[in-house]
Amino acid sequence: MTEPLFDRLCLIGAGLIGGSIARRNREGHALAREVIVTANSQATRDRVRELGFADRVEDDIAAAVRDADCVILCVPVGVYAQVMAKIAPHLKPGAILTDVGSTKGSVIRDLTPLLPAGVHLVPAHPMAGTEYSGPDSGFPTLFEGRYVIVTPTEGTDPAAVEKVRELWRRCGSMIESMDPVTHDKVVAIVSHLPHLIAFTICGTADDLSEETRESVLKFAASGFRDFTRIAGSDVNMWRDVFLNNREAVLEMLARFTEDAQAFGRAIRWGEAGFIEDRIKRGRKIRHSLIERKQA
Amino acid sequence: MTEPLFDRLCLIGAGLIGGSIARRNREGHALAREVIVTANSQATRDRVRELGFADRVEDDIAAAVRDADCVILCVPVGVYAQVMAKIAPHLKPGAILTDVGSTKGSVIRDLTPLLPAGVHLVPAHPMAGTEYSGPDSGFPTLFEGRYVIVTPTEGTDPAAVEKVRELWRRCGSMIESMDPVTHDKVVAIVSHLPHLIAFTICGTADDLSEETRESVLKFAASGFRDFTRIAGSDVNMWRDVFLNNREAVLEMLARFTEDAQAFGRAIRWGEAGFIEDRIKRGRKIRHSLIERKQA
Repeated sequence: MTEPLFDRLCLIGAGLIGGSIARRNREGHALAREVIVTANSQATRDRVRELGFADRVEDDIAAAVRDADCVILCVPVGVYAQVMAKIAPHLKPGAILTDVGSTKGSVIRDLTPLLPAGVHLVPAHPMAGTEYSGPDSGFPTLFEGRYVIVTPTEGTDPAAVEKVRELWRRCGSMIESMDPVTHDKVVAIVSHLPHLIAFTICGTADDLSEETRESVLKFAASGFRDFTRIAGSDVNMWRDVFLNNREAVLEMLARFTEDAQAFGRAIRWGEAGFIEDRIKRGRKIRHSLIERKQA
Repeated sequence: MTEPLFDRLCLIGAGLIGGSIARRNREGHALAREVIVTANSQATRDRVRELGFADRVEDDIAAAVRDADCVILCVPVGVYAQVMAKIAPHLKPGAILTDVGSTKGSVIRDLTPLLPAGVHLVPAHPMAGTEYSGPDSGFPTLFEGRYVIVTPTEGTDPAAVEKVRELWRRCGSMIESMDPVTHDKVVAIVSHLPHLIAFTICGTADDLSEETRESVLKFAASGFRDFTRIAGSDVNMWRDVFLNNREAVLEMLARFTEDAQAFGRAIRWGEAGFIEDRIKRGRKIRHSLIERKQA
């Protein structure tokens, strides 16, 4: 039997990601001897107790992190500073503090100022998700075959980084390292901008005349459907992602908008060659993804 | 045994849609006693002969349509005028001329002027597709559970319209009628704009620095992937769709761009409430689709 990686692993937040990590441990993947879960809302904590995927559910966040060898923030990135203010005095010397947030610059900005000496900060981002959220939504195989990007800051203890990498290996993930600035740009184009577009086009459709909107819903099967799958995502999480990756998202939105306007201009002026070129580039990227088995 | 709907059904074009109609007939769905296929390229005609899903493959388009009770145009909408010039003199009096194009205003514009007296034009649009194209890509169940929109013009013989509706019923589709202008607006938002966005965002990603682009391909699994599925679509078909539904696509692009810019502005100025509202609307539309089983 594999030795558990940690004695006590504390998860702050028990939604899709936190709930999936806890369930992974339950299924015998030796993340920790004991998994302690806490969450801001009474309803969530009660539900976690009912579901039984944690060894211990703590109402008090300070009690939850005390004595934990590893603490993982599994809450929207917008509340990190606030959570850190509550937990920082209670973190054990030598403990590892890590997270699962979709932005990494803001996480380092919000956690570093209060980081106690001797606590190791290792930010991480598992690139896995579904359109569901809440304590019922997690499952132990969520991270299998998915990338986890680790963005250690300069001077982070290599042993702590390795422990976080091993945690995700035991979740079935592939691990990559990246600096936080590159991370934030990459996710802005592969994930945040597509979500912004998905949310937006739903609103655009919703603003059409009553009759057209009815037809839109009826005939959405072709094309629109794929855009709305990701539009089902969690409200608070995504609000915080946009607000906390502002520069990169705005840069990618600006680039995309220029390109979309150029496409529109080509349609207006009947520039068949330009349009064909754009479509061919789309197909090329698509085929690259298929070759890499990401599609 | 069901009586075949037509004696001779002629398919002009044998890609995903034409090939699927022919295969549907082969599987015993009684579309016609004989299915005649023609295609512009020798390679396609040869491949159709090899695949054997047509009863007869004609090199000469005039010979293909002669004596057909029903002719279906299954080619990109940009070549309709040109094809019509070739077939119009050979259409049988009483024959039905229909199509499968994704735009309907342009189809009526391009086919009506040469329509021989006594030939019934019934434009139609099966809202079904995959990211594959060509004679190998079709399959007999492609249209099952999908909508087909029929856009008869004023004065079209009701018996001819009913025959086209029955053809699609036998393909397993649900049939709706709509005027061509409404059709073109609805597909502009549910299908054409999403495709424009998908092609564009691939190009935007492709223009990033070498290092970022590499990472984009690697980490595309979350979000980006869904956008690129539809970006794998056929080049000529989509070029023609954009050029032939210009007004509606440009209108929807303009509306969408305004909305995306408003979203970007809210991110820049930290307007959490506005962002939450947009995300909630996205979720609402998503949930409507789930209720309608279109998701």
